[in-house]
Amino acid sequence: MTDYLHTEIEVEVPFYDVDAMGVAWHGNYVKYCETARCRLLQMIDYDYPKMRDSGFIWPVVELWLKYVRPARYGQRLRVRAALTEYENRLRVEFRIHDAVTGERMTEGYSLQVAVDAVSGELQYVSPTALLERVEKRR
Amino acid sequence: MTDYLHTEIEVEVPFYDVDAMGVAWHGNYVKYCETARCRLLQMIDYDYPKMRDSGFIWPVVELWLKYVRPARYGQRLRVRAALTEYENRLRVEFRIHDAVTGERMTEGYSLQVAVDAVSGELQYVSPTALLERVEKRR
Amino acid sequence: MTDYLHTEIEVEVPFYDVDAMGVAWHGNYVKYCETARCRLLQMIDYDYPKMRDSGFIWPVVELWLKYVRPARYGQRLRVRAALTEYENRLRVEFRIHDAVTGERMTEGYSLQVAVDAVSGELQYVSPTALLERVEKRR
Amino acid sequence: MTDYLHTEIEVEVPFYDVDAMGVAWHGNYVKYCETARCRLLQMIDYDYPKMRDSGFIWPVVELWLKYVRPARYGQRLRVRAALTEYENRLRVEFRIHDAVTGERMTEGYSLQVAVDAVSGELQYVSPTALLERVEKRR
Repeated sequence: MTDYLHTEIEVEVPFYDVDAMGVAWHGNYVKYCETARCRLLQMIDYDYPKMRDSGFIWPVVELWLKYVRPARYGQRLRVRAALTEYENRLRVEFRIHDAVTGERMTEGYSLQVAVDAVSGELQYVSPTALLERVEKRR
Repeated sequence: MTDYLHTEIEVEVPFYDVDAMGVAWHGNYVKYCETARCRLLQMIDYDYPKMRDSGFIWPVVELWLKYVRPARYGQRLRVRAALTEYENRLRVEFRIHDAVTGERMTEGYSLQVAVDAVSGELQYVSPTALLERVEKRR
Repeated sequence: MTDYLHTEIEVEVPFYDVDAMGVAWHGNYVKYCETARCRLLQMIDYDYPKMRDSGFIWPVVELWLKYVRPARYGQRLRVRAALTEYENRLRVEFRIHDAVTGERMTEGYSLQVAVDAVSGELQYVSPTALLERVEKRR
Repeated sequence: MTDYLHTEIEVEVPFYDVDAMGVAWHGNYVKYCETARCRLLQMIDYDYPKMRDSGFIWPVVELWLKYVRPARYGQRLRVRAALTEYENRLRVEFRIHDAVTGERMTEGYSLQVAVDAVSGELQYVSPTALLERVEKRR
């Protein structure tokens, strides 16, 4: 993932994310990934409000997560998001590690496609609004 | 609460709402109350989309909850919502009981005020859109 | 999915699950799937508390979701969960349709593996506690 | 709140906390308060795991929140938690301000009581485990 546009955030597993088994409930990782993806999109100035302003919405159409190790209350996680595709759709890859030990915790990806906010039409090529922003950063 | 417009829903405490102590995390009751309040507002045909159509939004401005007994995974809760004020603001009172034993679990209330969706102005008297709907049901 | 042990639940998209784009936030579908999976496991009397009593925990190790259509506030969804593997791990497949129109909304799967609650050891063959319960239902 | 033991955290309103009205859903503030309260309890080394180790659980028995201004996606909030009672119960007061403008957003409090983890008995005087920790910090 080295060459891709990427970023990292840190998350401390909050009490309300921990389930009866004493580990972060698996569905909560979607939030950690979303926070990292938003930060990544902010880097190219194409966060949700800017997407909408550009005339497109970008629904998540696919999500995959693989859980390697469970995380516990107060554990600090480093969440890395990398933009691995952008020409026809947004593919963001996630790697979550323990922020202290560096142990691999979780990995995954999400796919988003552009949809015209007015017509509702799916775009098979990413709109210029995205392409320009990504290429400026390369 | 007998004479007020009211309704009841049933909630089964889901796994993802239970915390590391093995009980429903206290913040999750806000969801149970919200679901009951939405059902109550549907009874007078003034649910969120209808509020917006009427030109007003109704933000929650106050919330109070008192937790009498903890709820566990799979426990079935009966959530009662009653409209106890509507002339100047919406006051909804909640009573949560165990659906099987009838034990009292939680109680509370929420307050909402009308805000003009265009001007953002707070309304000190509830708009006709609400008043007519409530009075039709009395 | 016809021959597999399966079940269906109905979910009404709650207000607090809807995001700024007016559709159910993609991470919330993990909850809908979890609720359906819990119901499925209850059918074989092997829900979370029973898992723990049998000496095993069953963490979700993989999750995949594909979003075909967005769901809106109040939309009623039919969530089907089917047990498509159980010998070495639990694989549950999900199909979410609009409860009224039958339109396909979302699909996915989750994988869980048995872990000995005391030793923390991963089980490469599902424990008897699960096998017996599934085979009784076939 | 100046003299009380207190702390502050910063929260950036995440996308998944924003509702269809474009503002943070009121139930999500319970999470912001919880995060601040956990930080406060960490200051006296009496966070959830330490509570349990001391033989007591501390369920939230009351919660009150007053919403003054709505918060939007990406808005940075400063959440202050202060320990205003501890002799017989834990009372934590919350003040949420915009981290940039300083505008008052939300305020509230939570009450927790000690319950013996084994007998389940409610404690009308806070256990020594808490009293010693608080007094050491004063």
